Amino acid sequence: MNVEQNQTGGFRSCFRRVTPYVPGEQPKEQNIIKLNTNENPYPPSPAVAKALREMEPDKFRLYPDPACGILTKALADYHGVGADQVFVGVGSDDVLAMAFMTFFNSDRPIFFPDITYSFYPVWAGLFRIPYEQKALDENFRLRSEDYAQENGGVIFPNPNAPTGLLEPLSFIEDILDHNRDVIVVIDEAYIDFGGQSALALLDRYENLLVVRTYSKSRSMAGVRIGYAVGSCELIRAMQDVKYSFNSYTMSQAALELGTAALADEAYFRTVTDRIIATRSRAVKRLTEQGFCCLDSCANFIFAAHPGYDGEKLFAYLRQNGIYVRHFSGPRIGRYLRITMGLDEEMERLYETLERAYGSL
Amino acid sequence: MNVEQNQTGGFRSCFRRVTPYVPGEQPKEQNIIKLNTNENPYPPSPAVAKALREMEPDKFRLYPDPACGILTKALADYHGVGADQVFVGVGSDDVLAMAFMTFFNSDRPIFFPDITYSFYPVWAGLFRIPYEQKALDENFRLRSEDYAQENGGVIFPNPNAPTGLLEPLSFIEDILDHNRDVIVVIDEAYIDFGGQSALALLDRYENLLVVRTYSKSRSMAGVRIGYAVGSCELIRAMQDVKYSFNSYTMSQAALELGTAALADEAYFRTVTDRIIATRSRAVKRLTEQGFCCLDSCANFIFAAHPGYDGEKLFAYLRQNGIYVRHFSGPRIGRYLRITMGLDEEMERLYETLERAYGSL
Repeated sequence: MNVEQNQTGGFRSCFRRVTPYVPGEQPKEQNIIKLNTNENPYPPSPAVAKALREMEPDKFRLYPDPACGILTKALADYHGVGADQVFVGVGSDDVLAMAFMTFFNSDRPIFFPDITYSFYPVWAGLFRIPYEQKALDENFRLRSEDYAQENGGVIFPNPNAPTGLLEPLSFIEDILDHNRDVIVVIDEAYIDFGGQSALALLDRYENLLVVRTYSKSRSMAGVRIGYAVGSCELIRAMQDVKYSFNSYTMSQAALELGTAALADEAYFRTVTDRIIATRSRAVKRLTEQGFCCLDSCANFIFAAHPGYDGEKLFAYLRQNGIYVRHFSGPRIGRYLRITMGLDEEMERLYETLERAYGSL
Repeated sequence: MNVEQNQTGGFRSCFRRVTPYVPGEQPKEQNIIKLNTNENPYPPSPAVAKALREMEPDKFRLYPDPACGILTKALADYHGVGADQVFVGVGSDDVLAMAFMTFFNSDRPIFFPDITYSFYPVWAGLFRIPYEQKALDENFRLRSEDYAQENGGVIFPNPNAPTGLLEPLSFIEDILDHNRDVIVVIDEAYIDFGGQSALALLDRYENLLVVRTYSKSRSMAGVRIGYAVGSCELIRAMQDVKYSFNSYTMSQAALELGTAALADEAYFRTVTDRIIATRSRAVKRLTEQGFCCLDSCANFIFAAHPGYDGEKLFAYLRQNGIYVRHFSGPRIGRYLRITMGLDEEMERLYETLERAYGSL
């Protein structure tokens, strides 16, 4: 760099001011047990591996279909809805951000829980959407009456994160009945691990949008696929917004791999059943060790030990090569969020925790 | 749908209002000659095919590295800059939109040409950035004095689109010298087809951002990879903005395929040289047919025939299975933008045009 460096300082005043954020660490060491980002411990379906082997690289020279036809059609068939009822995006973060942008355009605040997915307030801030965070009750449950007040839209995950708690369809329906004039978004990132999907309510509520991801139950976080299902009117509104500023986001590879994954329902059931079984055993083992585990319906467990500080357990596990997640905060600081891993990884977790009690 | 349909109309008032846009048609018929979207007629490098065959689907279960380490490092090495000087995104549209968001935060208008990439005014509108479009001169050239007035930032493609006209480095430098206090973005989507890159100026201008894409010269439009190169300060600002609302956008497949492509410089040179040769022959053949061709330095030619209306020629070609691009507008409506195709595709274009003259 030369002398001009000191003469060009003015351009920095044009930078957008943001709260810098450092993305979650990806351990580079070998033998790390990674139970910190709710990834799936099992590989994607062999149908995905087959689609990868058969993929034609020559196709890459062309832009992908902006309407994502093959994947949209496959998802529509899978869920028994029309192809005009599905919107696909680059992971559910992309789909959720597009839903915020498309549907939360009221002067009234949107509502979501105070303990929930951390990107909701971020997107609200990004798009200048007023919002109110509704406190979960003493059992970390949503209170339906909180969402009956006048608002500009409602969004929450079901099961919620990081609690893993599932609300029944009757709860979702109650929320919908009290929110006819706004869009209600149900973020079902973790629904495949034992929950009942709000997709069953689509026929009766045109203002319901259900958002899904391939990152958890389909073991495809690395492919970046998320999607929304809703009335054709909601989907068209999202497409209009998306096309208005970006035509091509889904790669040809993602379209083909995402389509292939849907064809192998047996593998999907096997993997999700296995994770549900791991979760049952983990609740038993952690409870035996003295943990209080929330009743998770996700691929993770939110658990606190009355005798040991969450942050200290987190640090001990980390020193011993096991990454789990710890969130600071008045009500959740005592808890660990533990992603369900392979059986042998879980065994090492239990053993390491036993050693922690002796040394903390 | 049931009776509730008529009772829930209120939610539509929450929709974001946009000008609906229908993405460019992707012909489904066989034997269409597609010279309309500036794709590369040659396949990606065999190194990309090899990387695809060797890709491990089991890796897909994990989130990709949010810092895109392997691709960022490979691009930095390729261009001889630091890894902290490269930002990668989902196609150059994603990178350009992120640059608008990060760098164009002034009350003064940003400047770009009146005839240029159609998404610039779109992103300015999306992020509520004031802008002024500066008219190209009578030869479709940028006038450097237009960009010497006080502004909030400058962006233009070099070569420009849809003209294909290249400005020399001295022109870019003149723009930079008159714009020390704002960010200057040079969109080099088409630079590999004979232009001299502004990357050579990076050492001397910390406020210069150069944006590139894999979609044209690297035959990888379907993989969605774009990137920006600039001072580490500019790149950090873009990363801060990106991480603040979305951690993961680049798929594992894109990271691996994009890295592989860079290793095969010989193939890259062969393909770009071949397209440059096709362009020379095309200018000659079209000129012989009476066309006026702008002096393109891109993988397309912007050409007008004094005797035939652009829209009519476009429609005739389309009826005969050849898709080129036509833009409406007072100064460009007479022109066709013709992407360079395979030699045999270009021959069919010339023959079909000859027939057009007899029948229009």
